[in-house]
Amino acid sequence: MSDQEREYTVIFQPSGRRGKIRGGGSVLEAARSLGVEIEAICGEKKTCGKCKVQVMEGFFEKFGVESSMAHLSDWTKDEDRLLSTAERENHIRLSCLSKVKGDLLLFVPEEARGGKQVVRKKAGKLKYPADPDLRIYYIEMNAPTLHDPEDDFLRVKQALKDAHNAEANRIDLFCLRQMGDTLRAAKWKVTVWLWKDEIVRVVPGKVERHYGIAVDIGTTTVAAYLTDMENGRSVATDSKMNPQVRFGEDVMSRITYAMQNPGKGLQQMHEAIIGALNEIVGNLCDEHKLTRDDILEMVLVCNTAMHHILLKLNPEHVGVAPFPTAMAPAVDIKARDLGININASGNIHVLANEAGFVGADNCGVLIAEEPYNSEEDVLIIDIGTNGELLCGSKKLGVVSCSVATGPALEGAQIKFGMRAAPGAIEKVEIDQETLEPRFKVIGKADWHTHIEDVDAKGICGSGIIDVVAEMFRTGIVDKGGRFVKEAPTRRLRRDETTGQAEYVLAYEPETSIGKDIVVTQGDVRAIQLAVGSIYAGAVIMMRHLGIQKLDKVVLAGAFGSHLNPFSCAIIGMFPDVPIAQIISVGNAAGDGARLCLVNKSKRIEANKMARTVKYLELTVFADFERVFMKAMQFPHMEDPFPNWKHVIDEIPNWKKIAKEKKTADTPANP
Amino acid sequence: MSDQEREYTVIFQPSGRRGKIRGGGSVLEAARSLGVEIEAICGEKKTCGKCKVQVMEGFFEKFGVESSMAHLSDWTKDEDRLLSTAERENHIRLSCLSKVKGDLLLFVPEEARGGKQVVRKKAGKLKYPADPDLRIYYIEMNAPTLHDPEDDFLRVKQALKDAHNAEANRIDLFCLRQMGDTLRAAKWKVTVWLWKDEIVRVVPGKVERHYGIAVDIGTTTVAAYLTDMENGRSVATDSKMNPQVRFGEDVMSRITYAMQNPGKGLQQMHEAIIGALNEIVGNLCDEHKLTRDDILEMVLVCNTAMHHILLKLNPEHVGVAPFPTAMAPAVDIKARDLGININASGNIHVLANEAGFVGADNCGVLIAEEPYNSEEDVLIIDIGTNGELLCGSKKLGVVSCSVATGPALEGAQIKFGMRAAPGAIEKVEIDQETLEPRFKVIGKADWHTHIEDVDAKGICGSGIIDVVAEMFRTGIVDKGGRFVKEAPTRRLRRDETTGQAEYVLAYEPETSIGKDIVVTQGDVRAIQLAVGSIYAGAVIMMRHLGIQKLDKVVLAGAFGSHLNPFSCAIIGMFPDVPIAQIISVGNAAGDGARLCLVNKSKRIEANKMARTVKYLELTVFADFERVFMKAMQFPHMEDPFPNWKHVIDEIPNWKKIAKEKKTADTPANP
Repeated sequence: MSDQEREYTVIFQPSGRRGKIRGGGSVLEAARSLGVEIEAICGEKKTCGKCKVQVMEGFFEKFGVESSMAHLSDWTKDEDRLLSTAERENHIRLSCLSKVKGDLLLFVPEEARGGKQVVRKKAGKLKYPADPDLRIYYIEMNAPTLHDPEDDFLRVKQALKDAHNAEANRIDLFCLRQMGDTLRAAKWKVTVWLWKDEIVRVVPGKVERHYGIAVDIGTTTVAAYLTDMENGRSVATDSKMNPQVRFGEDVMSRITYAMQNPGKGLQQMHEAIIGALNEIVGNLCDEHKLTRDDILEMVLVCNTAMHHILLKLNPEHVGVAPFPTAMAPAVDIKARDLGININASGNIHVLANEAGFVGADNCGVLIAEEPYNSEEDVLIIDIGTNGELLCGSKKLGVVSCSVATGPALEGAQIKFGMRAAPGAIEKVEIDQETLEPRFKVIGKADWHTHIEDVDAKGICGSGIIDVVAEMFRTGIVDKGGRFVKEAPTRRLRRDETTGQAEYVLAYEPETSIGKDIVVTQGDVRAIQLAVGSIYAGAVIMMRHLGIQKLDKVVLAGAFGSHLNPFSCAIIGMFPDVPIAQIISVGNAAGDGARLCLVNKSKRIEANKMARTVKYLELTVFADFERVFMKAMQFPHMEDPFPNWKHVIDEIPNWKKIAKEKKTADTPANP
Repeated sequence: MSDQEREYTVIFQPSGRRGKIRGGGSVLEAARSLGVEIEAICGEKKTCGKCKVQVMEGFFEKFGVESSMAHLSDWTKDEDRLLSTAERENHIRLSCLSKVKGDLLLFVPEEARGGKQVVRKKAGKLKYPADPDLRIYYIEMNAPTLHDPEDDFLRVKQALKDAHNAEANRIDLFCLRQMGDTLRAAKWKVTVWLWKDEIVRVVPGKVERHYGIAVDIGTTTVAAYLTDMENGRSVATDSKMNPQVRFGEDVMSRITYAMQNPGKGLQQMHEAIIGALNEIVGNLCDEHKLTRDDILEMVLVCNTAMHHILLKLNPEHVGVAPFPTAMAPAVDIKARDLGININASGNIHVLANEAGFVGADNCGVLIAEEPYNSEEDVLIIDIGTNGELLCGSKKLGVVSCSVATGPALEGAQIKFGMRAAPGAIEKVEIDQETLEPRFKVIGKADWHTHIEDVDAKGICGSGIIDVVAEMFRTGIVDKGGRFVKEAPTRRLRRDETTGQAEYVLAYEPETSIGKDIVVTQGDVRAIQLAVGSIYAGAVIMMRHLGIQKLDKVVLAGAFGSHLNPFSCAIIGMFPDVPIAQIISVGNAAGDGARLCLVNKSKRIEANKMARTVKYLELTVFADFERVFMKAMQFPHMEDPFPNWKHVIDEIPNWKKIAKEKKTADTPANP
């Protein structure tokens, strides 16, 4: 019997999950099938080296005994490249590369575990009054008689017209199936849900309030808002990790996963997100004592890849140049056709995609921020796992572009990068004189100012931007992003194996991962690339519009709203603008979804404006590469934009902060 | 262990079907569950006495042994009333009344068997050119580039606009899911199916022809027409029994079945008709070498009860005064929502119901015959299991009504009545001098003019109308419908048990049922009631419109098209009209369905005209009862309509026929 035909017991620690796994599959697949989340940032492209597992039982047979006895497949050349000798000796393997060949007890190191992201997407007040496509109307009718034997539908239609001047021309089949009995049980006194001109629900008696759900499906996080349809207020929120993270951290990994697993991959990821939406719907309904049948509309925003997977459209083409989407305009789909467990007659509205890499989520940002109505020249940066930029004004019109920031800004492809989950260093400051850092860890209330165990696990996006900006400001790295050898701090050192320079942000005793958390030369380069791409995108857009100087920069997105505007300014994420004009608006994509849920004019506006925004494909601009290369420098030297030195002077309280830091403990060499 | 907990073996002969049946259920239920069709015309209301079974094994224990040993439940009072002593002695039971209490071998007498109806619904040529809501367009596009990265949908939309000036604003999700790969595989040369403004199918290359299906769902028969959408031609037809017949012969029986089996009954009948439609779709596609995916639209017509069961709407309310339907206007439903196996993105269009008992099938008749465009005053009679009448003209407008003909005109509630299946006597003439009949049996090519075995099994609708008309014409029954004792024929006799007069139409040797086929006084009464109701309905309609005399009578329906207009005239089915102006148009309801399939203007016209036709609820007319009572007389004496004596003179060839009959054998007293 071959390995492919046999099943083996595989146990993952520390979760303790176990199950029978058919031989021949990878450990990563085994983990997924057992619901164990292992970070697989590169989407099995053998580049990230993150998906480590430690073999507790089973692996020892690999040494000294014949290969056929091994419980895992042979050590690979890729593992040679991605893992250290110490790791190899410590029985660390990469789960994407090692295949199950026998019973296994595996340990997932903390750094490789998928953690629950800290969701920090809050719902603010909306700028528009509620005037939704979905309305409720209370009506009373006379029962049919032989002199007035009109059918149920036309009777309801007439009552809606008479009492509310509301026009009903259609009725959903699933609603119609229940209406007759409801009308009679309720003695012809009912509340009718009307979606546009379609009757979608009829319930006995008078109902005063009704609710819809707006959802922002991020690559990493799904955030949902239960919304009062009559006043637009968000009455409950829920969020959870996008369970597709199991199949790859970023959109390209997921597209790759779909391509490498034809049919099945897309189906798995589609089911994962539908399942997550159904859980969220359940949670929101339970919280507000509603049934799923009470929900008749959801509005969804997401990037184009998430959009395609959500609708079970092949995402392959959106991942390959020229990146055409399958469907740009907004779509309305019956909930039952997507398997979303709200009322079967309910509607799922997905906002329009603007272009291949500017999705429905950016359409949400667009109508929430309305650059097309702005008197000022504004740049809007929505940094998710990709960067989407909008630029323009009422006068000039609006252009969009997508920049390949890479996942660095969210903590991936950074040596100790991680998502914004507990244990992540999210804010960093470096003392100008001592070059000692202080930082804040998610899950801890206070700033960490002296050596103590704060269970730091890694650095999330806002933290990495902070630390890079601070290293530049304090002279640890130079304009070109190179570490300055002469910088007077013991924290600057060389990695023993690679010889690369690195800055020690947290010493081992401060962490929960048993090693120093450092920022490497490679990390700085990754941030330069990300920041340079945003800056270069902005430059191309401004040039296209003929803008010399921005009036305002808007940072959107859950991630953007946690960035330190000063850090962004210092590293030159965007062209020159007064610090006071750098505004953080939070989850504008989610705001756009909520607006479209409760205001039908905004919904029309969204679909229209998504088409009027001009998408600039940066790669077709001849000098994009040149602009981009220059933009990677801190601060930027690109004409006609002045450099950023003045920003530093604008930053308040630097003196004070520096002083505070002096009083803090300076760590001994650990 | 009680009877309800045990299972017994039940075998039905002559079909040989057998199975395990849980004790306590009726024999009729057992038959249904095993797929044995037993006629249950009254819908288990204990009035028809048709659902006979003969107990071959098991029943004998009923006599002489204790009751608990019996394999069937006790003989009932209702069986006393509905079965003769001879039948009781011959171990005949009614299957709806006897419950399974042990193993059984049962024989279903031929007269109680459900037979396959002879379907005689042919498709003629349509009066309108093809201009359907569903069109196909061949388009060629350029592949996306970085300079033109438009999404797939808008690319297709633009090509449709450019090449054909066709407007696409929507795309069905299930179609969208396949479009991207299809466009690329086909190198951007595809044929697009556009339903109104919605893209519903995209296939590679150029397709020249496409097809839709029109279906007339009759209470008894489902007839379907595979139709070329580009020229309206019917290229294949198929039909089958409406499998709901198992649950009751007429609409009221089925409504009753639904009410007596809450939830389950409707579900069973709904699944039965959907299953039948799927079989028909399969047959038509196979015949024309199409796949089910090739079919993107079906248009259905049916009466209101069939309409409700088809859509799985509670039919209860449509069966009780004031008979309001759930939904009068036409509906468009995605095929997938009904479980109909055409293309998942396909549309099911069901024509509008006019009123509680004037359904979508009559809407089909309405737009096929267009009385609202007629210069003449026309009466249209659609006789199915119910009678629906339309009356009016362009000048006067059109009114409709429904008359409770009862099932007599289709052969039910007639002692030897049966459906138009092989063995049914379908045409009858009686010699004026000898009072001897000659008749035609379905399945036999020639008229039956002398005693010989022609396997006659019963009399179908057209036959019973013929024989009653002929008995009246030849003086065997009088104006009041009573048998004339003095009529000089041995065929007129009294039933030994009931004492009722009867006319022997076929002697036992001519039949396959082992007994004489007779027409009873009760049968004549049933026909009088049916015919009187149509006549009275017409009178009320004409009076409402102010019509003194009809210009034309149209007989519609598969049944109507087989009626002998002379017989109808003789028994006074409708008010005075020249014989030449009595026109048979065949399945006008089916014609209406086909028109709506291939012509979008007719579809709009149908929905509109269904609402402009004024429905007259006959029971609210104070003198309806009086008119009806008078109308039961042959020929009618109702003022201002002259009686029908002149009609007989108009009938051609009576002399010739009479002469032929004389030469035929006169049967010996059998």
